[in-house]
Amino acid sequence: METIIIDGKKAASVLQEKLAGETALFTQATGLKPCLAAVMVGNNGASQTYVEAKMASCEKVGFESRLIRFEDNISEQNLLAEIDKLNADPTLHGFIVQLPLPKHISVDLVIDRVSPEKDVDGFHPLNMGRMAKNQPAFAPATPWGIMQLLDFYQIPTEGKNVVVLGRSQIVGLPISLLLARSGNPGNATVTICHSKTVNLQHHTLQADIIVAALGIPEFLTGEMVKQGVTIIDVGLTRLPDASKKSGYRLAGDVHFESVAPKSAAITPVPGGVGPMTITALMQNTLLAARNQLGMA
Amino acid sequence: METIIIDGKKAASVLQEKLAGETALFTQATGLKPCLAAVMVGNNGASQTYVEAKMASCEKVGFESRLIRFEDNISEQNLLAEIDKLNADPTLHGFIVQLPLPKHISVDLVIDRVSPEKDVDGFHPLNMGRMAKNQPAFAPATPWGIMQLLDFYQIPTEGKNVVVLGRSQIVGLPISLLLARSGNPGNATVTICHSKTVNLQHHTLQADIIVAALGIPEFLTGEMVKQGVTIIDVGLTRLPDASKKSGYRLAGDVHFESVAPKSAAITPVPGGVGPMTITALMQNTLLAARNQLGMA
Repeated sequence: METIIIDGKKAASVLQEKLAGETALFTQATGLKPCLAAVMVGNNGASQTYVEAKMASCEKVGFESRLIRFEDNISEQNLLAEIDKLNADPTLHGFIVQLPLPKHISVDLVIDRVSPEKDVDGFHPLNMGRMAKNQPAFAPATPWGIMQLLDFYQIPTEGKNVVVLGRSQIVGLPISLLLARSGNPGNATVTICHSKTVNLQHHTLQADIIVAALGIPEFLTGEMVKQGVTIIDVGLTRLPDASKKSGYRLAGDVHFESVAPKSAAITPVPGGVGPMTITALMQNTLLAARNQLGMA
Repeated sequence: METIIIDGKKAASVLQEKLAGETALFTQATGLKPCLAAVMVGNNGASQTYVEAKMASCEKVGFESRLIRFEDNISEQNLLAEIDKLNADPTLHGFIVQLPLPKHISVDLVIDRVSPEKDVDGFHPLNMGRMAKNQPAFAPATPWGIMQLLDFYQIPTEGKNVVVLGRSQIVGLPISLLLARSGNPGNATVTICHSKTVNLQHHTLQADIIVAALGIPEFLTGEMVKQGVTIIDVGLTRLPDASKKSGYRLAGDVHFESVAPKSAAITPVPGGVGPMTITALMQNTLLAARNQLGMA
């Protein structure tokens, strides 16, 4: 059986086209464009790249977008005051605070300050709790993108053994909740593995689906997976590579060369989960705009 | 090796004594008693028993308690208005709405209406999300009681394979989050099993610890567990039994006779998890009172 390379770019492009159509209808009905803002503190190169990609996607689907930048010496108090302004701004439907933040600023305080109704990143604890309880919520963009990728490729999850590698609040934990809860995709038997897991290979060898979200490049290798597994690779690390113009190459958490031949389906890096993350963020933003205009 | 019967009554009694001491100090410092209210709608017999047990525990540890009863024909709107009053009442530090509610009332609407600061049952999505994110939160009483029982008996969880049977919002889901997250107890490799799990026995046979919270009496039998397993039985079902005065006996989700001989440690029903649930509720109430008086 040939391995299916899951094409996140293609899925994202189809879903964004659908979203552009919904956005046009929204704009026709309201005279408004959904508006997303990104808050960036400092000059992290990777953050800059991500934010620019998000702003470009806004334009493509017919959103307004704003990039709001602060110097990396902005005080925590001033940043929180700026968030209050964004919360109160009726022309803005959703916003994200691009992570990481400088060390003198508490990420938890910042995330908790974002209005849950504008929290299109789905990082606020109220959205996390609503999602866990299977209530309407903004799910975090990466796990929500993964769910749609599974749906797009009609990969069955019900009753499947899913192993999630990593328990981060942004990916591992929410994707575990989404896949374990009632629904389709969903209804999987989910095992959450992490740095304290003993004999990890014992777990990964039993998995029908593995979601790798550890942030350790090329961690998952061929001998750790069974024949016919489906692999979702969330990792995205820049590794130095002198042979590249940029000086680096992008690596996932999966050792593609050894894992792909054993896989029924696998996401590449880049071009797998990444494009879906942005799509999910856009979808959340349109949802936020609809909610705020009472169109839910 | 002899099987340890985990004595929830003993653990609860020790922890409630500690709590009574902390409460006395609180009252000395503030001139107030922590105050817990229970809202009961209708006349469910089991609910009545639970609520009375909670009220009795309040007295034992030095709390005030109030039982607020409504007829089972109270409208949803009126119940929500009563909850608003309790939220606004400064003499009340925490309250619970005893479930189940009559069918014409939405449980989600009611739970969402309880102020998260008084939600000592830990059912509000904001508390669920804070707990998932490992932030200060009211954890639901049963899972929080289980965590303390594991701690009381010094049962190691780090790196252990834990299988949770059931994904309810009240037990299965939150105990999965608590055991998987960083901490002690915690740091376990958690597998969440449920009605859609295929080949359940395959999972339970690999478990070092099983938390049974399905609500199916005597579901887990001896051939489903490995030698040396630790069993936490959350089930509590009344089974008809003509030989008893009451006409019923209490059954857990575990078939004790066949599972206990293979277990290193096991909770009985009754007398295992139950007493810890009430203890956790009391601890949450003192915490709520401290928070509301700025003593956190």
